[in-house]
Amino acid sequence: MALLLKTEKIPRAAIQRLAVYLQSLERMLRDGAALVSSEMLAQACDVNASQIRKDLTYFGEFGVRGVGYNIHDLISSIKKSLSIDKPWNCALAGVGNLGRALLNYREFRQRQYNIIAAFDCDPLKIGQRVGGLEILHTRQLAEYIAEKKIQIGIISTPPESAQTVADHMAEAGIKGIMNYASAHIFTPDNIFVERVDFFNHLYALSFNISQSEEKTV
Amino acid sequence: MALLLKTEKIPRAAIQRLAVYLQSLERMLRDGAALVSSEMLAQACDVNASQIRKDLTYFGEFGVRGVGYNIHDLISSIKKSLSIDKPWNCALAGVGNLGRALLNYREFRQRQYNIIAAFDCDPLKIGQRVGGLEILHTRQLAEYIAEKKIQIGIISTPPESAQTVADHMAEAGIKGIMNYASAHIFTPDNIFVERVDFFNHLYALSFNISQSEEKTV
Repeated sequence: MALLLKTEKIPRAAIQRLAVYLQSLERMLRDGAALVSSEMLAQACDVNASQIRKDLTYFGEFGVRGVGYNIHDLISSIKKSLSIDKPWNCALAGVGNLGRALLNYREFRQRQYNIIAAFDCDPLKIGQRVGGLEILHTRQLAEYIAEKKIQIGIISTPPESAQTVADHMAEAGIKGIMNYASAHIFTPDNIFVERVDFFNHLYALSFNISQSEEKTV
Repeated sequence: MALLLKTEKIPRAAIQRLAVYLQSLERMLRDGAALVSSEMLAQACDVNASQIRKDLTYFGEFGVRGVGYNIHDLISSIKKSLSIDKPWNCALAGVGNLGRALLNYREFRQRQYNIIAAFDCDPLKIGQRVGGLEILHTRQLAEYIAEKKIQIGIISTPPESAQTVADHMAEAGIKGIMNYASAHIFTPDNIFVERVDFFNHLYALSFNISQSEEKTV
């Protein structure tokens, strides 16, 4: 069994890589594999093998030399170390196009991120059903979060509403926020925020493409 | 005028911060401001001021001590240095919920990322209009990309189709890919890929929340 080094801090970049390993490992398990070497996993994830071996030491080594890692155990260990081996309750605010897509995104539920409530302030949307949920009025958000002990808030509102929604979530005792709105939100220090910004990625693409074109001209 | 140091490599993390500065600066300009100090910008972006001053040196300093930066010039310089001062042609493959949301996301066009074609392989979707575009069959994708000189491909297919679509895009001469599918894609070295993975963010949230709860127990 893997020894989970709870006290050690896993760096941000390693968490991202663990998420990638996890997806590859789950695919291998579905395909019927039982064991994987760091080289095989490296190839599947497009990372180098020594990076993988290093990352896996964050929660204790348990690969066997010449044999490899037990895929099932490795998946369990990664999930446990990231605390994604249990369900998380989420609430979403802002049922526009993106909000609808997120509410219908089956992979959230498959990975135990259960969106159990959806909020909007548009009277025309209140009462509609999206992804199996009835849309509630945003004014019910704070009470709902507190009552149902919702841990993660998902903000998919227009940018100008994001801060107000974040404030309500913070007051209601939310633990973390996924911010899809294209606006920076301020929260108390004890609330974790992850910003999903499509433009960071697009800007990085544009920049890299332009740089490489300059080199080849 | 800002001096753009084209030869200098801007690190990935700095590009992300520049994107954040840009959004704050654009808001300030809309609100009628003309000048900004690094301290004001730092507060608006929740970054420290020395970090901002350092990042802005990537394309030459031009703040005036005691006066600050000209917001309009700063926006132009950031846009120019990231090569986002010109339009980019994009094509999207996979018109599910997320694809629909992306096609209807006005901010792409506002920021000159013009999605000019959308593809799907579902016969029921071909010919439908989403976000002003008629959905074309995926088999037309490669020809269309080559003919219209599309630079950026957006993949919002189910994970199992992502690699095939990426292969078609690569063959057709795409320069970069935004991959929203929850699967790793392999491409030739000269094609840049940005993976937008919601689970990286969710896993980081879960991990951070759990770590902080352990500390407080």
